[in-house]
Amino acid sequence: MRAVDLIEKKKRGKHLTEDELVFLLQGYLDGSIPDYQMSAFCMAVCFTGMDEKELYHFTTIMRDSGDRIKITQGDTNSKDYRFIIDKHSTGGVGDKTSIALVPLLSALGLGVVKLTGKGLGHTGGTVDKFESLPGFVFPHKKDKLNAMFSTTGVAMTSYSDTIVPLDKKLYGLRDVTATVQSLPLIASSIMSKKLAVESDAILLDIKVGNGAFLTTLKEAQELTRIMLALGSQAKRRVLAVLTDMNQPLGTHVGNSLEFAEAVSFLKGEASSDFDELVRTLASYALQLSDSSLSSHDATHAVERALSSGRALNALKILVSAMGADPIFIDTPNLLAKAKYTHDVIHDTGGYVRAINSHAIGTAAMTLGAGRAHKNATIDYSAGIVLHKKVGQYCKANTPYATIHTNDKHAISHAQVLIQDSYDFVNQKVSPPPVILETLSNELANELANELAK
Amino acid sequence: MRAVDLIEKKKRGKHLTEDELVFLLQGYLDGSIPDYQMSAFCMAVCFTGMDEKELYHFTTIMRDSGDRIKITQGDTNSKDYRFIIDKHSTGGVGDKTSIALVPLLSALGLGVVKLTGKGLGHTGGTVDKFESLPGFVFPHKKDKLNAMFSTTGVAMTSYSDTIVPLDKKLYGLRDVTATVQSLPLIASSIMSKKLAVESDAILLDIKVGNGAFLTTLKEAQELTRIMLALGSQAKRRVLAVLTDMNQPLGTHVGNSLEFAEAVSFLKGEASSDFDELVRTLASYALQLSDSSLSSHDATHAVERALSSGRALNALKILVSAMGADPIFIDTPNLLAKAKYTHDVIHDTGGYVRAINSHAIGTAAMTLGAGRAHKNATIDYSAGIVLHKKVGQYCKANTPYATIHTNDKHAISHAQVLIQDSYDFVNQKVSPPPVILETLSNELANELANELAK
Repeated sequence: MRAVDLIEKKKRGKHLTEDELVFLLQGYLDGSIPDYQMSAFCMAVCFTGMDEKELYHFTTIMRDSGDRIKITQGDTNSKDYRFIIDKHSTGGVGDKTSIALVPLLSALGLGVVKLTGKGLGHTGGTVDKFESLPGFVFPHKKDKLNAMFSTTGVAMTSYSDTIVPLDKKLYGLRDVTATVQSLPLIASSIMSKKLAVESDAILLDIKVGNGAFLTTLKEAQELTRIMLALGSQAKRRVLAVLTDMNQPLGTHVGNSLEFAEAVSFLKGEASSDFDELVRTLASYALQLSDSSLSSHDATHAVERALSSGRALNALKILVSAMGADPIFIDTPNLLAKAKYTHDVIHDTGGYVRAINSHAIGTAAMTLGAGRAHKNATIDYSAGIVLHKKVGQYCKANTPYATIHTNDKHAISHAQVLIQDSYDFVNQKVSPPPVILETLSNELANELANELAK
Repeated sequence: MRAVDLIEKKKRGKHLTEDELVFLLQGYLDGSIPDYQMSAFCMAVCFTGMDEKELYHFTTIMRDSGDRIKITQGDTNSKDYRFIIDKHSTGGVGDKTSIALVPLLSALGLGVVKLTGKGLGHTGGTVDKFESLPGFVFPHKKDKLNAMFSTTGVAMTSYSDTIVPLDKKLYGLRDVTATVQSLPLIASSIMSKKLAVESDAILLDIKVGNGAFLTTLKEAQELTRIMLALGSQAKRRVLAVLTDMNQPLGTHVGNSLEFAEAVSFLKGEASSDFDELVRTLASYALQLSDSSLSSHDATHAVERALSSGRALNALKILVSAMGADPIFIDTPNLLAKAKYTHDVIHDTGGYVRAINSHAIGTAAMTLGAGRAHKNATIDYSAGIVLHKKVGQYCKANTPYATIHTNDKHAISHAQVLIQDSYDFVNQKVSPPPVILETLSNELANELANELAK
């Protein structure tokens, strides 16, 4: 077998067999197939794609290139047994969903096993948001994860070199060869990591819009369809929610700012879009674990977990188990604060018609909240608070956003980016929907039918 | 400027500017842009192509990456001044055209300046065919080429690392990344080398069929159109002849066998297809040099150069000038002979309907006449003589081909390949045309109009 023939086959739009993909991918991982052949192969995939079977093999070879994560639980009939949800977001601006959702799911009696990533470019990462709590450390060893799960119902770790190392190597190559944008390659990259984690169901939050890597609904639907099919082939229940990223999620952008916003939600105070998204995902997770549960009952269970303070308490337990002081939950004001704040003001007033989330994400990055490149350090306290979102009215001479930073030289550039990202009009504007669409694979169809009722 | 952005641009089907191509190609040559980015770029080109302007820049940057070849002649009005033709074939099986054409053009008072290549895979190379003469050495130094030209009217050299080194590096990468088959990349590879040689006109022989890398007329027309446009932009007159390669050219395949066949042609004995092709190319070359010359007069001039023995004599002069003994022209039988010959016989008799030239070329290679890989050594005496070509009748129990080799273990496999490549039928079959089409760019249009009369 020769790599050049496999590249040629893919270039012609033919489908590779499992053996051929093993030869190519394992060869790439062990170095016998060089970068220049793999990049040509990836570019050919960008144009000719992969069929379902081929992509499944591609994804499972990726999955099997490293360690698997499996939590040890007792019997499925024991009262302590938790149905395990793996929740994943494709990433956006202001996406602090996991910080609120993970403890909420735990409070609902569900288990969460989850790999989290760091932020890069204009999007933040869950790792950084949690690590904005002094002392918070993600466990990596198997026994620590098991212990964490039995204490908190949550086993959450950050990506390491031993989890799907092939994806890490391949993504590094794709990043510099303009081959990131390929739906099958994106799907296999995400799903190989989901399948490396043993879970009962996968809950995908697919972000769509100017702050996400998927900018159109059509593209997002296509990627979702591919990921659902991969889930089916791997006999994994998958439910995907396509959600709006044409404005940042919630009001806070930046690590400790977002952590504080998630805590506010658990305390019953939150912006409506973030509130709706977290509650919806939690209800779906409940229904994935129990298909006999009605949508109405699931919604009520979520409401009770929040209003009773159980979800907030679950976050305290989680934070303590991971080495941080739960006092930051009671008093998020104790988190690191930026030295400078600066209001961005609108002179004449108007309705917010649109907010370019990519520009907001970039502004937050320049303020110190994100990484321009992989090895950049970040400032947990930096970020932006958006006082006005799409559909809201900003009065003349009042601030619609506030900049937080320790780098005063960054303020003026960030202000320009924020001003440019906001579009004000005189006419009333309806706020956009948060949930655009819900899709599931056949294994979760029973639930989907239920949701459609 | 970043290579990844240029790859992305090409992936999206956008056109790169001259500056961008300089950045990419010079960066690739000097090593600042790695193989894996260049291979991804080439694969993107395979799918999205290049427009005329872009391809012209791409080609001239390639051309300018190394030495140029320019022959010094006196005044264009002096009686010794020769109009310089650069003749190029895209390569096929049994293509010994240059061995006959080059001295014929010289005998017609034309100059020939030409880069020649070695054989690879199923196709032979002019370098090897000339070097089958003991002592024959291609000159490389400028003064030697000038001296050769003033003695013979011919300056012929083989490719070296200093001529278009970028093409050499890029072709090596394309070869292992399945990016050879791309018309713009093929066109720029050929034309960068044509443009590196100063000539008054370029005569292209584009082979089409199962023994050529272009298998369909449509593809060949498209490649030709691209090369003619490149010639126009470089203000170079280009005339292209699309010729049949659905059977080997002439009767002999293999280096000294082909040399002998070319000599036979110059002595007035040759298979009709080879005879027609050489005479046609020579007439066109004459008309390129003098647009007032009618097709009829050109044909006659060619006939006189052949029948007078002037063309044969020109080959002797050429061979002597390049270090070989002209006795091999008088008596080609003195050339190295293979130890073994083996006839391939047909049991029942029949008309030859088709010959797969790729299989014949591969058979010749396995007999020792060609190179399976770049560094393989070849056996000049090995090859195949085809006694019957398409349209001819082979009687029962008579040979239609004879194998020549020094490796007796190779005979049975070659015989099977030859048998499989011949298709016999009972009905009469017309021999296929040799010249399929003649095309020229606007600078040679005057001639094309003349030819159409």
